Amino acid sequence: MVKYRIVQIGAGNVATHISKAFQEVGHSVVQVVGRAEANARALAKEVGAAYTITMSNIDKTADRYIISVPDSAIPNVLSALPQLSGIVVHTSGSTPASALQKVSESYGVFYPFQTFSKARSISLKGVPFCIEASGADVVSALSQIAASIGGKPVEMDSEQRRWLHLTGVFACNFVNHMFSISQVIAQEKGLTFDMLKPLIRETVSKALEGGPENSQTGPAIRGDSETIEKHVAMLKDFDTEWRDIYRLLSSSIWNTAQNND
Amino acid sequence: MVKYRIVQIGAGNVATHISKAFQEVGHSVVQVVGRAEANARALAKEVGAAYTITMSNIDKTADRYIISVPDSAIPNVLSALPQLSGIVVHTSGSTPASALQKVSESYGVFYPFQTFSKARSISLKGVPFCIEASGADVVSALSQIAASIGGKPVEMDSEQRRWLHLTGVFACNFVNHMFSISQVIAQEKGLTFDMLKPLIRETVSKALEGGPENSQTGPAIRGDSETIEKHVAMLKDFDTEWRDIYRLLSSSIWNTAQNND
Repeated sequence: MVKYRIVQIGAGNVATHISKAFQEVGHSVVQVVGRAEANARALAKEVGAAYTITMSNIDKTADRYIISVPDSAIPNVLSALPQLSGIVVHTSGSTPASALQKVSESYGVFYPFQTFSKARSISLKGVPFCIEASGADVVSALSQIAASIGGKPVEMDSEQRRWLHLTGVFACNFVNHMFSISQVIAQEKGLTFDMLKPLIRETVSKALEGGPENSQTGPAIRGDSETIEKHVAMLKDFDTEWRDIYRLLSSSIWNTAQNND
Repeated sequence: MVKYRIVQIGAGNVATHISKAFQEVGHSVVQVVGRAEANARALAKEVGAAYTITMSNIDKTADRYIISVPDSAIPNVLSALPQLSGIVVHTSGSTPASALQKVSESYGVFYPFQTFSKARSISLKGVPFCIEASGADVVSALSQIAASIGGKPVEMDSEQRRWLHLTGVFACNFVNHMFSISQVIAQEKGLTFDMLKPLIRETVSKALEGGPENSQTGPAIRGDSETIEKHVAMLKDFDTEWRDIYRLLSSSIWNTAQNND
């Protein structure tokens, strides 16, 4: 495997997980560039890199520059960066690749489609890395580096990447929020989230193995309006929005099923 | 293990899975009583039982009668049943136990908190069986039979059971609908549901292991209104309700997080 010298710009969740993965398979993270000194120092220590909080101190000799910062911070990072000769990528789901063209001739997108939390170690095995780049050689280089850490490189343009990002909001962010609501209700009523775990495991296995379109159960798809109204009435003790969520999702389950018939 | 002679009333998803589980561990399902002859015959054949579609032909010699029919059909079943000397239970999440008192002196609730689909075989191992009964002896008998098929008996009253059922709508029905929406969007845009699977697996592992309250990621909890507005605009090609869902869930994620601070 070709080993690269990598500069990691950003020291948050994505930066941490990717840098550790690079270092574990033998690439060198030579420098971490971060806005908050404590974070930059911590990540640098973890991967054996130098660190700086001054963008103009960036190591210009690296092969790869990975920008993993919030979308809203990308313009500031780019305006502070000098011209670079290595490949510069960002890991954003919704920023176009072309945003990077002013800092390097070789640039691209290296977007891991996964949910990262700092405290939780994670395998990148099989995780799609959405790749888009300034040229075929850069696509190939980024695909190799994604594969070297266990990822599955998938070439797609900025528009498809935005759509994939949007699907992730439904399948991850909104799903987790449904779990949160179920947990709060359970705990308020003397039940436990543990009681929900076998149901959650089977729900997800069923959707992953047989497809969610074949897995819908419950009062909404049966058109059981009596149970739905009882549930809505029970939710009066909770946040008003949860009642609205119950009604809207029940209606949407019903309508989606009719459209599929 | 004590072996029982069981009559199964109903031949749908829950009836099928429970009857098969009874038969696998050595209880005898002696009769299936169903409204639709084809279903009753099929389940009876699968578990080696007799079957009837006439409620008055019910086998009066059995120890246990399990009513697994839609909630709305329970009153009709009860009015057609003769007085029975065995324990009579239903498997409903939202019907009170007391509904059964007119058909037997020994009655109760035997509600498996799980999602069942006919085509999919399922382990009942660790599945909570919510138990409520006419007396302590019946609670004990129902707990034993739940445990004999791998379930985890949990005694709770009708009100707690209704709340647990409601949490299941969020954690199962609504979660599956989120997966469905993500799948439709992916497929419309030349992507695949397969690309979403590593994200879904990690989302769920994280919520199950660390708790959903510690796992929320995404634009809504960051208050990233720019991304939210972009996503809402992208959803204009789809069902109007999906845009409403995106807005409402994003608002709820934000508000839930503020309340927890």
